[in-house]
Order: sequence, then C-alpha cells, then structure tokens
Amino acid sequence: MTREDECDRWLDGHRAELVAELVAWLRIPSISADPGHAVDVRRSAVFLADAAHRAGFPRSEVWETGGHPAVFAERIEDPALPTILVYAHHDVQPVDPLDEWTSPPFEPTVVDGELRARGAVDDKQNVLMHLEAVRAHLAVAGRLPVNLRLLVEGEEESGSPHFEELIRSRRRELAADVAVISDTGMLGPEAPALTIGLRGLVYWEVRVAGPAHDLHSGLYGGTVANPILGLARLLADLHDADGRVTVPGFYDAVSVPSAVEREAMAAIPFDEPTFLAAAGVPMAAGERGWSTLERKTVRPTLDVCGTWGGYTGAGAKTIIPARCGAKLSARLVPDQDPDQIAERVRDHLLERAPAGLVTTVEVLSRGRWVSAPSDHPAVQAAARAIQAVWGRPPSLVREGGSIPPVAAIASDLGLACVLFGVGLPDDNFHAPNERLRLEQLHRGTRATVRLWDELARLGRPGCCARA
Amino acid sequence: MTREDECDRWLDGHRAELVAELVAWLRIPSISADPGHAVDVRRSAVFLADAAHRAGFPRSEVWETGGHPAVFAERIEDPALPTILVYAHHDVQPVDPLDEWTSPPFEPTVVDGELRARGAVDDKQNVLMHLEAVRAHLAVAGRLPVNLRLLVEGEEESGSPHFEELIRSRRRELAADVAVISDTGMLGPEAPALTIGLRGLVYWEVRVAGPAHDLHSGLYGGTVANPILGLARLLADLHDADGRVTVPGFYDAVSVPSAVEREAMAAIPFDEPTFLAAAGVPMAAGERGWSTLERKTVRPTLDVCGTWGGYTGAGAKTIIPARCGAKLSARLVPDQDPDQIAERVRDHLLERAPAGLVTTVEVLSRGRWVSAPSDHPAVQAAARAIQAVWGRPPSLVREGGSIPPVAAIASDLGLACVLFGVGLPDDNFHAPNERLRLEQLHRGTRATVRLWDELARLGRPGCCARA
Repeated sequence: MTREDECDRWLDGHRAELVAELVAWLRIPSISADPGHAVDVRRSAVFLADAAHRAGFPRSEVWETGGHPAVFAERIEDPALPTILVYAHHDVQPVDPLDEWTSPPFEPTVVDGELRARGAVDDKQNVLMHLEAVRAHLAVAGRLPVNLRLLVEGEEESGSPHFEELIRSRRRELAADVAVISDTGMLGPEAPALTIGLRGLVYWEVRVAGPAHDLHSGLYGGTVANPILGLARLLADLHDADGRVTVPGFYDAVSVPSAVEREAMAAIPFDEPTFLAAAGVPMAAGERGWSTLERKTVRPTLDVCGTWGGYTGAGAKTIIPARCGAKLSARLVPDQDPDQIAERVRDHLLERAPAGLVTTVEVLSRGRWVSAPSDHPAVQAAARAIQAVWGRPPSLVREGGSIPPVAAIASDLGLACVLFGVGLPDDNFHAPNERLRLEQLHRGTRATVRLWDELARLGRPGCCARA
Repeated sequence: MTREDECDRWLDGHRAELVAELVAWLRIPSISADPGHAVDVRRSAVFLADAAHRAGFPRSEVWETGGHPAVFAERIEDPALPTILVYAHHDVQPVDPLDEWTSPPFEPTVVDGELRARGAVDDKQNVLMHLEAVRAHLAVAGRLPVNLRLLVEGEEESGSPHFEELIRSRRRELAADVAVISDTGMLGPEAPALTIGLRGLVYWEVRVAGPAHDLHSGLYGGTVANPILGLARLLADLHDADGRVTVPGFYDAVSVPSAVEREAMAAIPFDEPTFLAAAGVPMAAGERGWSTLERKTVRPTLDVCGTWGGYTGAGAKTIIPARCGAKLSARLVPDQDPDQIAERVRDHLLERAPAGLVTTVEVLSRGRWVSAPSDHPAVQAAARAIQAVWGRPPSLVREGGSIPPVAAIASDLGLACVLFGVGLPDDNFHAPNERLRLEQLHRGTRATVRLWDELARLGRPGCCARA
C-alpha cells in the first residue's frame, strides 16, 4: 500500500469528523460586506486559527488588518523542501434575498450528499480540504513532504481592500516557492479542471440625487428632473445593440485570443445547457460574435449588480424620488488595467450625467486579472494530482470570476499561482441555497494529499520556475 | 356683530381645542398603502366618527368597504335647504424615508406656528376644518344654514380602489345638490386659490425577471441578460430628448389650451422660485415648449416613482440580479382616458420588453382628471367665502395632483364639485416633514363658515346648476 493509499484510507475513516468541523464553522455568519457581521468574521478567524493548530500547524494566528482579520498558519518541516503559500478566504457572501433559501443559510443542512449553507463552497470547504490533507499526511507519515504557509483572508467577498497592504507588511513571513490558490472550481463532478486564468474586477457605486426630498408626483410631475429616469438613461447607454460596452477605450487593451486559442476553448467540455439551466435562464445573451464560454472568460463585461430609489413598498405611492443609485461591476481580461477602466467608466458616467441632477461615482474595489502559466511545472504537478483522483486529466480553463488578491500574490510576492479548487458551476455560490456536493470535498482532499507529494518531487527549483 | 363675526369670535376662543383634537387624530398612523397599518386606518375612522358626532352630526358611522373603512356623517336641518356632500380622506401617505424626518411622523410637534406630522395637511386638517365650522355655526345659531353630508374615505392615498363601488351602493344616502371636495390647496399664505381642475392618474408596476436566482457576476457576467439593464432601457426610452412621452397615442386626446387660456395662466401669481426651492432642485425640467405651471397642470406626465433590484446593501456584492422592478405614474389631463392610457403604456412596455427576460406590467390604480366649472354659482360662492377671509379673490387654478374619487363623484353622483382646501405648496405632503401652518387651518375654518352661508344664499336651484 502506497503512502497515498494509506492517506486515502485515513481520510475515508474521518469523513464524518471533517463534515462536522465544516458544519460548525459554517454556523458562523462571516459576511464581510455587512459591517453588522464584523464580530462574526472575527469569530470565524478565531475558529479557523484553532482548527489549523489542531490540524498540525505549530504556528497559527489571527492577523489584524485595517478591516476584517486574516488567519496565518505555518508548518515548516525542512528549509530544503519546497515551501507552498496557500491562499483562501474565510469570509462569505451576503445572503439576501433571504426568503429564497430553502433552509436558513447559517444552519447547515445535509441532504442527499449535499451540504447546504452560505460559504459551504465559497470558500470554507477549500480551506478545510487543506487542513484535512495535512492531518492525513501527519497521521500516516508523521510529517509533510513540503513546508506549508496558509494565508486565509477575511475580506475577499468585499474586494480585499487591505490585502495588498497585509502581504507587503508580511512579505518575509509569506516567502514561498509557489502559491496555491484555493477559491476556484471545476466544470462538473466528472469533468475535472484546473483554472489558468481569472478575470479582473472593478466595482462602482453610482448615485443620482435630485430634489431635497421625495416630491408629490402630482404637484411636481412634469416640472423637475426625475433621478430614476436620469439613472436609467445612464445605464441604458452602457451597451450598444450588439452588447458591446460603449465606454470609450473600454476594449483598447483587450488581448484578442488567436485562432488556435479559440479552437482550444471550443474543445473544452463546457456544458452550456447545464450552465444556463443552473442559472434558470431561457437563453444566453451578451456580446455578439463570441461564444458563451468566450464571453464568460476572455471577454470583458460591464454589469449592474443592484439598483434602488424611491418608493418600493406595497401599492402605489405617488412620488418623484429624491435620489437613487446603482452598483456596477466590470470583469476585466488581459491586458486591461483596472485603474484605467475604473476611471474611464467613472468619467464616462460623469460626462453623461443628466442635467438638473447631481451624479456621483465611487469606485468600491478593483483587482487585476490573473493569467496562470499553463506550462509551469507546478501547474502540471497539480494536473497530475487531479488526474490521479478523478481518473482523467483536468481541462485547463479560464474562469470568469475574479480573485483580486491572487493578482497581488503574483505581482507583489512574485509567485507563480496554481489555482486549485473543487467548487462546481451549479453550487449557487453568491446566490441563495449555496450547496456543496460532499463527494467533491472528499475527492479534493485526496487530490490535495497528492499535490504536496507532486510538488515535493519537483523540488525547490522546479516549484520556483517562472513560465 | 354679524353671525359670521360671532362665529369668528367663537373660533378664536377654541383654537387650542381644535389643535388638540387634530394632534390626537394625527397620532394614529392611518397609512392605507401599508397592509400592516390596516388596524390604524380603522382606528382613525372610529376616531373621526366619534369626533363628527361630538361636533354636531346626529348620524355618524363607519362605513365598511372592500378595503379600509370610510366615515359618513349627516346633519339634515331642513329638506328645503341646499344639501352639500363634503368629500375628504382620513388615510395618510407612507412615511419613508423615515430617517429624514426631524421629528417622528406620528408624534405631532408644534413649532413656530407649524404642526408637524404625517397627514397634518393631507388631509386631516381639511376634515377638522369642516367639523369646526359646524361647531361654530351650532354654537352661535343653533343650526346650520345648509344640510351637510360628509364622506371621508380611508383609501385615497392608495388610489381609492373601493370608492366607486361604495358611492354606487350608497347613492341614495349621498344625494346632494353640490359637492365640496377638501383635499387641495392654495398658492401661498397670502395667495388664496380655488382649484378648478385636477389631473388624472394611472399607476403601474413593472417587473423584469431574469435568472431563477441571483448569479455570480464573474461566472455569468457576459452570458445572460441582466434584468436591471433591460429595465433601464425600457425606462430610458419613455421620453424623447424634448421631454415628450414616446408612448404612441399618449398625447392624442390632450386638450391644448387656447392662447387666451395660456395668457390667463401666465397671469396667475405662481411663485416658481419658491416652488422650486421647496423641492430643493436647482432648475425646472420637463417637456420643452411649456411653462413650468403649464407642465404641472395642463400637460400630462409619465414618471418613475420607485425602482428596486439586486444588491442594495453596503459595499460590493458581485451578482447579476434575478429580478427588478419599477413603479410608474402618469398624470393625465382633459380629455385623456385613463383606461386607454393604462393600456397604451402597458402595451408599449410589453412590445419593447427585452429578449431573454420576462416583463410583466400591472395597473395598480387609475383615475380621471377633473375639470371644475369656474363659472358655476357654487364655485363663485366659494370664491366669495375665501375673499371675505383673505381679503382678496382667490386665483382659479388647475392642480397637478389627482383625486380619483372626485371624478367618480362628478360622474356617478352627477354633482358639480367645488375644490375647497387650504394646503400650501411647501407643506411637504407626500414627503418627510409634512407640516401645517396653523394660520391656514384657522383661516380655512372661517372661510368654511362663510361657504355654508354663501351656498345657503344661492338656494337649492343655484347650487344644483350645471355649468
């Protein structure tokens, strides 16, 4: 029996404890976007620091930031071994609309092999997958084949506003040969994947103010500018009839994939009907001239995430509202610059701001896209670890989502990043009824056991290689 | 000393009691649009029925409707005298945004001769003005110079959905020679006015549904239709660059004022700077080619009263929302038909409904415009009553607001309507910090005392005359 087989056997014997620990953690509503849950994000950090210590990290501590705390844990076996920096996050998305959850988001429920709770997939399962792989190695061999440093932040779902500052101030303690980022997913339960690209993100809040207070729409209707109509015109003009963003310069830096790259993308087993069915939409939509998979990965987007203004209660209230607003997000691709896009969209909105109203635009967060080198030895090592568990090589895919801190790890710490996570497309992360298929967690844990062995085999020079 | 002077003296001696009774009534949050306040609307009706009985109406009762109750009170002195049907309402507008009130909306506060509370102006003051005038007549003369029937409904701020049914089923009990509607206002404390026209109203709720639940904007951004963007395009296209409504046929039936009428309007002492300052806007806006006063009275409008969708909390949540919506209201003028406009706007929105999304439009309320005959003897009688108190003749003005039940009283009961109310343009009705200038209430009560005398002098034939 190989050591990996022994680890598998150990893991199979401890599944219930793993799920129980995840359930306990998921009961803590660590919503970083809501200031009312700050104390819960801190409780989550304390829980995790304790769990990491129990799993076998001699050093495990809560790191303060300018916002919500992060958790750092370290186990150094031997300076000659490769050192891996693992990144994940312990904060979760907000839960509204709450009335669409079939069970309370912070009362984890296991049904038919699924664990339902906010944060189950994004990202607490990925964190515990790492702790469990460490336990297995230590139980079987008494040591890890690599040195591990874990950095689990508490503000990823709020745009990681303090992350760059944190890693710059802790650069020495975060030194590593390669980074493993665990906040991504696969194409399906039997369609393993490794992510080799992430989109960047910019997030704006637009506010349009009109009258000093809500006005009677009979008395004032027809005489003053209506903020909601002004905002609607701003939003309606953001795209042309072909679904292209109209902001000048938005596409200037976009890297157009080659014919070869487009062919490779077309060969990825992307299940579009399942993808759309999971969203509950009757048809795909978006920029003309690109496939759905291309639009979600190699093309940038500009979307509205929320809007509000005036009377929204039951029945009819006849007012002209004093103000309204909207939240906008863009997903960026190589080589768009987030700062430049943040400014261009803001300037575009302000230039077109409707007369008689006061329009303001605030940039709430921004993050660079990431391009992981698909021919990097560490990425190839991760692919082998996945293949060993799933029985087939992972597809190398670009993801539509954004993980701003990954860009910081790549540029500020100078590390190649392996994007290694086991979420599934229809897990409803960022939506009501987030659910984790427990088999993904268990397979992911086995693959993580093998990932450390594969990276150990590369040795330090192999892990460190830059693509 | 004339009887009217005696009444004035009696009124001056009872001001504190009048204000105290108004304060007690204003403590009842009779918000008809909010089902959670149904019990309060009922409490308000019971309070009023009791107050009317105490004021001298031998018959005073709560009338059930399919929704919130109305109050009916009657005092018949002599069948040979003119019978007046007084209409007003005891329900009030919602109070949000609550945080903009400087004192709680249902804790009436008197400061500097102003009474601040939701409903102080619209419309509880107008109701008590009538009760107080009755008290004065009875105290001085022991009888009224006319027969009075009061109908005070509880659903005016919700579009009066059961009013037509109510007056049709109570036609015999509501028989009268003329109607006095007390739910309008004047141009300023020293600029008395009588309203001779009201705009009609149609109110819609538009909903646009996309994904089955909120989606991760990274995973799905660029691949599915965004409901908020779809709704924004619908709203943005409702007006052209000249501020004209683009719905086909919207203006077909609009009666264009003659040059003479436009000259008369231009002569009304409409204080545009004060009007705009009360709204807190830097400039007027609206349909090109018409004055502000014209746009608010003789031109129809289409406005958005509220909008909602997606994430509206603090910070950044990166979603594509499942759904969104908006509330729209139109103000109509002679000879637009509310049913036809309701359908045309709905059809226009549905015809332009964005692909990949499900758009629905619901008509929440509709009401006809009203044109009061300015040369009717009863309107002239009301003008004399006002002139006697304010020392100058009232301007005869059209109002921008809508009182759907007035149209029903005119057409279903066949009565000429005198629009007799004392609100002021900057009283913040339908807005936070609604306030009543108490001097308006006291002058209005004196004018009401005189109105009954003036109508009595006309006798039944004069009151009944159709213009």
